Amino acid sequence: MRMYDLITKKKHGEVLTDEEIQFMIDGYVKGEIPDYQMSSMLMAIWFNGMTDHEITQLTMVMAKSGDMIDLSAIEGRKVDKHSTGGVGDKTTLIVGPIVAACGGKVAKMSGRGLGHTGGTVDKLESIPGYKTALDRKEFFDTVNKCGISLIGQSGNLAPADKKLYALRDVTATVDCIPLIASSIMSKKLAAGSDCILLDVKTGSGAFMKTLDDSIKLAQTMVAIGEGAGRRTVALITDMDTPLGLGIGNSLEVIESMDVLKGHGPADLTEVSLQLAANMLYLVGKGDPDECRKLAEKSIEDGSAFETFCTMVKEQGGDDSVLRDYSKFAQAPFKAEIKAEEDGFITKMNAEAIGEMSVILGAGRETKESDIDFSAGLMLHKKYGDAVKKGDVLVTLYTSKEAALKGAEDLYRKSVVIGADAPEKKPLVYARVEKDLVEKY
Amino acid sequence: MRMYDLITKKKHGEVLTDEEIQFMIDGYVKGEIPDYQMSSMLMAIWFNGMTDHEITQLTMVMAKSGDMIDLSAIEGRKVDKHSTGGVGDKTTLIVGPIVAACGGKVAKMSGRGLGHTGGTVDKLESIPGYKTALDRKEFFDTVNKCGISLIGQSGNLAPADKKLYALRDVTATVDCIPLIASSIMSKKLAAGSDCILLDVKTGSGAFMKTLDDSIKLAQTMVAIGEGAGRRTVALITDMDTPLGLGIGNSLEVIESMDVLKGHGPADLTEVSLQLAANMLYLVGKGDPDECRKLAEKSIEDGSAFETFCTMVKEQGGDDSVLRDYSKFAQAPFKAEIKAEEDGFITKMNAEAIGEMSVILGAGRETKESDIDFSAGLMLHKKYGDAVKKGDVLVTLYTSKEAALKGAEDLYRKSVVIGADAPEKKPLVYARVEKDLVEKY
Repeated sequence: MRMYDLITKKKHGEVLTDEEIQFMIDGYVKGEIPDYQMSSMLMAIWFNGMTDHEITQLTMVMAKSGDMIDLSAIEGRKVDKHSTGGVGDKTTLIVGPIVAACGGKVAKMSGRGLGHTGGTVDKLESIPGYKTALDRKEFFDTVNKCGISLIGQSGNLAPADKKLYALRDVTATVDCIPLIASSIMSKKLAAGSDCILLDVKTGSGAFMKTLDDSIKLAQTMVAIGEGAGRRTVALITDMDTPLGLGIGNSLEVIESMDVLKGHGPADLTEVSLQLAANMLYLVGKGDPDECRKLAEKSIEDGSAFETFCTMVKEQGGDDSVLRDYSKFAQAPFKAEIKAEEDGFITKMNAEAIGEMSVILGAGRETKESDIDFSAGLMLHKKYGDAVKKGDVLVTLYTSKEAALKGAEDLYRKSVVIGADAPEKKPLVYARVEKDLVEKY
Repeated sequence: MRMYDLITKKKHGEVLTDEEIQFMIDGYVKGEIPDYQMSSMLMAIWFNGMTDHEITQLTMVMAKSGDMIDLSAIEGRKVDKHSTGGVGDKTTLIVGPIVAACGGKVAKMSGRGLGHTGGTVDKLESIPGYKTALDRKEFFDTVNKCGISLIGQSGNLAPADKKLYALRDVTATVDCIPLIASSIMSKKLAAGSDCILLDVKTGSGAFMKTLDDSIKLAQTMVAIGEGAGRRTVALITDMDTPLGLGIGNSLEVIESMDVLKGHGPADLTEVSLQLAANMLYLVGKGDPDECRKLAEKSIEDGSAFETFCTMVKEQGGDDSVLRDYSKFAQAPFKAEIKAEEDGFITKMNAEAIGEMSVILGAGRETKESDIDFSAGLMLHKKYGDAVKKGDVLVTLYTSKEAALKGAEDLYRKSVVIGADAPEKKPLVYARVEKDLVEKY
């Protein structure tokens, strides 16, 4: 078998066999197939696509290129969640404890943030003492005790994907549904949960800009998951506007706790309940409506919040900060941005809001950058809200006073205040299950 | 400027600017742009093509990446010729002296053979003493004295093409008209002649398998040549069947001398006359019909043959072998392949015939292989000819007795004898000039 011939096949729109895909990925990981041949193949895939069967095989081979985590030491059905990434997306901190409080098992490894989207691990590390690095046994014990453990990625998960992604990133082949789907799902399959809930973001702040593309990506990933014997559901959720009001690490933990205590922002609460309901549906807690009620109850009775606190303590964290937010490290500099005119917020670019948080110190510019856990911003007005001249639109928090100006400039450039109220947008656009697409 | 953005543009079917093409090629030659990005770009070009303007700019930048040879020390109009490569294609040895005998100037650098197509330099080196490596002054002096000099490629011609071609060769991006055209023409422009005659082969033994593709390639190259101020004409000639009867280095020199002496095979003579007439047309010796008559006359009066002999002597060769072929080195082993049935040759795969000559020792398996100048084969029957059982179809010549069997097996596999005479095929299918395509 020669990589040259496989490139030729794909270039002519032919279908690669299972053996050919195996040969290609194994050879690439071993360094026997050079980058320049793989990048040629990736571009041919960008143009000609892959069949569902090819994508599933690619995903399985990538998943098996490293550790396949065995979660059988954890009792019950394990459910994982993946978000394609958004600004202010702190739903893992909310849906994880809800699902655990209702009897699902959440043994979840998360990533760090890079660029304008935050990472769950960074957010968790804003809780004093919280350990995101547990060994396998501690991880399993925590889930068995609390129903949930949220840790950082460890082990050698899907190294083929890591190598391929790095190449796609420099050869303009990231934006390709078969490659995105196989990249995400290879890591989810390797991570070992029985069920997978996918949160596919759509809109200006998301990778998928259109609903059609988002549904196509969701369908592709659901097909892969089901093909690999994992029950998989996807929700398509809005990312034109940041989710919730807080962006920044401790700010997002605080907001998540507000939701778990029953007084969080309405949009974030609603999206979290729908995600949690579908995770409970996946682990067999009833139909989606019943699961929704279970999720709501875990907030009302405080069990979801208590589950989170228990996990934090179990992982070495100081849960008192979750009850008294003033115990979080506080940003030394604050500033408010005020409305200069009356009107409605008709445009709020989520990506720009994410960039503001990076300017303020909440994110990483490069992989090696340090994070300022207290930095970030709180939105007081969001897309569609009426504003009056002088209203506070957003509060900025930072340790770098000089950053306030740049953040404000970016806000003024990217948020539009118009005369008329804009059209309302749904929070959740669609739900994708095996052989089923429901548009809302 | 970032290569990543240029790949993105081309992937979306956009047109690269002159500056972008310059940046890309300069960066690639300097090693600042890595192979994996360039191969990604090449595959995007394979899918989305290039405009004529892009192709011309790419060609010019590649031509200027190395030496641009200045032929002004040679008096008169210089005409170059390029063949896209075929089996038994020895026309340079024929048309060169014809054109020179009629007053055109031929200062031509040729390549060596690789694989199943032979190289002019290898053929010339079968003449005892002939030097294919001349310095620039010797080369110019020879052309000024004889009207012609045929030498090997020297200097640093279009190094960008060399590097790009090596990458295309391993990334399945060779078969792409914009890239083929710019590769060929970059070297022709760098080689410095005023006019260029292109012989685009079409058919099973050629790179371009269909007439439409061959015409498209010819039009693209003519547009590049004319855009660069070089008068350019292309003929589309048949390569379903080898040209002439002899394949092998000294065998092809002998056959070429037969044509110059007026008793060569009809097909080779006809194609050579049409090529030579067009070269004379390009250097301004009259309309194509007048030029054809000039070419015929140079054979009849012996001036073309004498011109060749003079050049050989001038370059250190023993021209007596051209008058007495028995003075060429002789192959120690000979064998005949005979017809096993009556009928007509209905299929003769040119590529397989070329492979036979390689098996016999006439070609190179790798760049480092030695060549056996006396090895090769003589066809006695060709496509369309009637054969009777027992007729000699081909004579094989080699220094490796063991190779005879393999060559015969390949012949039997690739040549088909059928009951009915097949359709006649033209030798020359079309002629392409600026803004003009004549199909014959």
